[in-house]
Amino acid sequence: MKVADYLIKSLETLGITDFFGLPGDYNFNILYAINDNPNTNWIGCTNELNAGYAADGYARVKGFGAVVTTYGVGELSAINAVAGAFAENVPVINIVGVPKTSDIENKTLIHHNFQAPDYYAFERAFSNVVETTAYLTSKNAKSEIDRVITTFVKERRPVYIAIPIDVTQIEIDGNIGFEYPESNPDNLKSAVEAIVNLADKSKKTVLLADAVLKRYRLEKEFEKLTQQTGYPATNFLMGIGAINTSLKNYPGTYLSDYGNDTAKEILHNTDCLISFGAIYSDLNTFGFALPYDLEDFAAIYGSYTVVNHKRYNDVMMNDILQELIKQLPQKVINLPEIKTGYPELEIKNEKLSSKYIYPRLQEFFKEGDCLFIETGIIPYGFAEIKLPDNVTVNTQTLWGSIGWATPAAFGANAALKDKGRVILFTGEGSHQLTAAEIGNMMHCGFKPVVIVLNNNGYTVERLLSNSPDDNFNNIIQWNYLKLPEVFAGNVWTASAKTDEEFNTVLKMAEQQDCMCYIEIFTEEMDIPSITQKTINKIKELKNTASV
Amino acid sequence: MKVADYLIKSLETLGITDFFGLPGDYNFNILYAINDNPNTNWIGCTNELNAGYAADGYARVKGFGAVVTTYGVGELSAINAVAGAFAENVPVINIVGVPKTSDIENKTLIHHNFQAPDYYAFERAFSNVVETTAYLTSKNAKSEIDRVITTFVKERRPVYIAIPIDVTQIEIDGNIGFEYPESNPDNLKSAVEAIVNLADKSKKTVLLADAVLKRYRLEKEFEKLTQQTGYPATNFLMGIGAINTSLKNYPGTYLSDYGNDTAKEILHNTDCLISFGAIYSDLNTFGFALPYDLEDFAAIYGSYTVVNHKRYNDVMMNDILQELIKQLPQKVINLPEIKTGYPELEIKNEKLSSKYIYPRLQEFFKEGDCLFIETGIIPYGFAEIKLPDNVTVNTQTLWGSIGWATPAAFGANAALKDKGRVILFTGEGSHQLTAAEIGNMMHCGFKPVVIVLNNNGYTVERLLSNSPDDNFNNIIQWNYLKLPEVFAGNVWTASAKTDEEFNTVLKMAEQQDCMCYIEIFTEEMDIPSITQKTINKIKELKNTASV
Repeated sequence: MKVADYLIKSLETLGITDFFGLPGDYNFNILYAINDNPNTNWIGCTNELNAGYAADGYARVKGFGAVVTTYGVGELSAINAVAGAFAENVPVINIVGVPKTSDIENKTLIHHNFQAPDYYAFERAFSNVVETTAYLTSKNAKSEIDRVITTFVKERRPVYIAIPIDVTQIEIDGNIGFEYPESNPDNLKSAVEAIVNLADKSKKTVLLADAVLKRYRLEKEFEKLTQQTGYPATNFLMGIGAINTSLKNYPGTYLSDYGNDTAKEILHNTDCLISFGAIYSDLNTFGFALPYDLEDFAAIYGSYTVVNHKRYNDVMMNDILQELIKQLPQKVINLPEIKTGYPELEIKNEKLSSKYIYPRLQEFFKEGDCLFIETGIIPYGFAEIKLPDNVTVNTQTLWGSIGWATPAAFGANAALKDKGRVILFTGEGSHQLTAAEIGNMMHCGFKPVVIVLNNNGYTVERLLSNSPDDNFNNIIQWNYLKLPEVFAGNVWTASAKTDEEFNTVLKMAEQQDCMCYIEIFTEEMDIPSITQKTINKIKELKNTASV
Repeated sequence: MKVADYLIKSLETLGITDFFGLPGDYNFNILYAINDNPNTNWIGCTNELNAGYAADGYARVKGFGAVVTTYGVGELSAINAVAGAFAENVPVINIVGVPKTSDIENKTLIHHNFQAPDYYAFERAFSNVVETTAYLTSKNAKSEIDRVITTFVKERRPVYIAIPIDVTQIEIDGNIGFEYPESNPDNLKSAVEAIVNLADKSKKTVLLADAVLKRYRLEKEFEKLTQQTGYPATNFLMGIGAINTSLKNYPGTYLSDYGNDTAKEILHNTDCLISFGAIYSDLNTFGFALPYDLEDFAAIYGSYTVVNHKRYNDVMMNDILQELIKQLPQKVINLPEIKTGYPELEIKNEKLSSKYIYPRLQEFFKEGDCLFIETGIIPYGFAEIKLPDNVTVNTQTLWGSIGWATPAAFGANAALKDKGRVILFTGEGSHQLTAAEIGNMMHCGFKPVVIVLNNNGYTVERLLSNSPDDNFNNIIQWNYLKLPEVFAGNVWTASAKTDEEFNTVLKMAEQQDCMCYIEIFTEEMDIPSITQKTINKIKELKNTASV
């Protein structure tokens, strides 16, 4: 089997059946391998950053994602998307077609290089933002592909493979050679013992679900654990959607001082927190609000576990979850009856604002929805929504690269096809960075609901800078509803400036059998209720303003 | 003076009065410094890649350019533009606002970082694609700014400065401290002697102008040299525009075997080539077509010179030019009378094609025009145009990142303001990558002529891949003329499908006092006459197809 075919087949084994990217004269042979495999499909994107984000969205839904770029110009345009996937533990492989081996060896000055050719410059650049890189040769192709994919599966983080044109065509053994991760049995046993000991002594054990649990797709196992043990469970912002809101002993998302007293109460007063895939970052934790360190207790990560600051390597999250389901002591802890979510709202025919938007969206969502929520003020509105069961919620709270959500929703749609509704909610400031991807989304026949919140500029930056009037936070106003006309596909567009209009528009959107592209308007400084306090806290921590 | 103010003042000294980028909460203090300086101006862009390209276009026109990005998410999105500027010797500084020093020291997990925070990861990534980097601290701020800008001025290549929030506000000595480059007098003398020796013995001396000569803005001095010595002069593709076509003894652009026999004749048969800023790459030289190595003779680069394979360091191009003007022997060499450029064409009311487009553009251009020509098939059409004097021609022939030309033209327009017409000629495949920047261009009140060649996909890739029908070279069709409507600014739009329509549209465009946005249509595989042979040559060299 040829190297390119082998690579594509290996990735197909992981469930990657769609590859995002742009063609370039150094990656054609990789594209042929995708076309030649009857189970894999090429999805052209508008640019490489968008392709990288699409692969990220795809991976969040389907487990793994891939972007294919060309040497230099293509791969570097995708690096921010790949770095974001690295930060957020999203397994995206960047496959790069590079010039042929003899050009590399002779340092030939061909296009997409520097005047002093440096064929490894971009691999070196990428090595800072991925788990591992490989630069294939005729000798190492098979073993390096296997090594890189083994790491990819174990760490669920981006990897990078550069393939010279000629190497793509070399014949290698076609038997899939990467390995699925296995825990070190001794370390697993020791880690489980340490956690069980901790829980045995505890009176207030709490479980916590966060981002990395989702990447390993262990939501169901986590649910089993909560049911088996009887412990209450909560989640950080990035963990929203990991726990079904109908679950007993689930008080909702932890909001620190800004709401949800029950979640705060149990999390702040626990004597044994067992966290799964937690990311203890400023925005995910409302400014590091816990009164202890996660690793004072049991912190379970993707491929290792820390208990009371002792690290156990090569312990896979799934294995430890299975053991904990069996071994953790049961304790019936009954949380008080909790009412989470926004109360039902009446329509007042007022100017549209956050006070109405998020409660109304709460009604709009249904089981199986797949939400993509752009960075900025919006995630704080979602933090208080009570979601139906089995809704997947995707945010980029740690990396926070504006523009991510639009192409990521495209990728998710490619992963889901017709199995579940994709809803993209973005601010217009973020949307501008990557809005062109709406065109490809439409032409793939996808039918997401796209909601663009137009609040006249970068509102979260207005909150963070010295004054809301700082000129650099203004952006030009687009006629957003004309954008789909540019792409000339099948789309239903609408806009809303009042609560009544928004209500009507959402009702109509439910009736459409095509992409819905909806622009909604609020005041410039209208924000979800918990945003202001959170931002003040972040601003204080970050010292954004003059020092 | 505060560090941020000092940096902006230093760059203002170099003529940078406009800064491109996007705001982010780590770069606000840099944006305040730009706003607070009465001579500098902030220009917000749609995304960071576009901002980087805009800074590139600005630098090509004004000498130096700057992009301001935020930590991680912003800077990485701009890295391809910066790498392209590095490849093409365009001086662009990337100024990055990063978190405050104590967060860096404590490795605090704040947004735009990895789960295991790595505050130097992005500087390391950039160190592979720029001349030098600096990460400012309270101690080194002044000396590092001065060092980096000194290198910037000497090498005319990108540099990178990361500034923690708190460091922007530290008070330092406000006297500008960077140095303009000076040649090493001994090396300069030796290099000049070696070249004069070579020329003394030569009977067929030829001068060659290329890209890096333009970056040092030495076109006028080069012209003096040609007039002073009487030697014929030609240029590679990237050097188009460096030599006025009205110059005596200028046979036009070197086209290897594909046209312009006089230029080929003198260049292939010279016994003493004195090249200025030449880039000996595949596309710039029609596949390395010269029968010798440039450094067999005299190859003058920006900050060093090579004569007969001996390298003379720290020799600035301007200094050596001045000496050569004084010292090179005069030789009256009369080239035969040469007719360059396309002959005048008659309108046949035919489907529009390259046969008409480029000759008609030749008539459209006028003295002082500033052209931005996208990578792909288009540059080959321009290679045969006879330009009016003092037309600047900008291509990205070495780096070749599709999408570059649109935002680069935006940057050039900001540099020129009303002093000269900007004309952007791009293919629709490339335009899609960065088309959103048209909006900001329009809202800045710029009045470029934008011509989008719609040939239904990536035509150059169709030529390079195995078959023109390979599905990955198709792209979705946009209604391009609807795009300006999205941005709701002052624009005149038109389209042309025949030679007659194109003729009329260009005449009308001359009458407009706003941006002109023109879509023209050709057959999918319509290409300028020299493209096919050139591409065949490149394909043969590159072995794109299956090996």
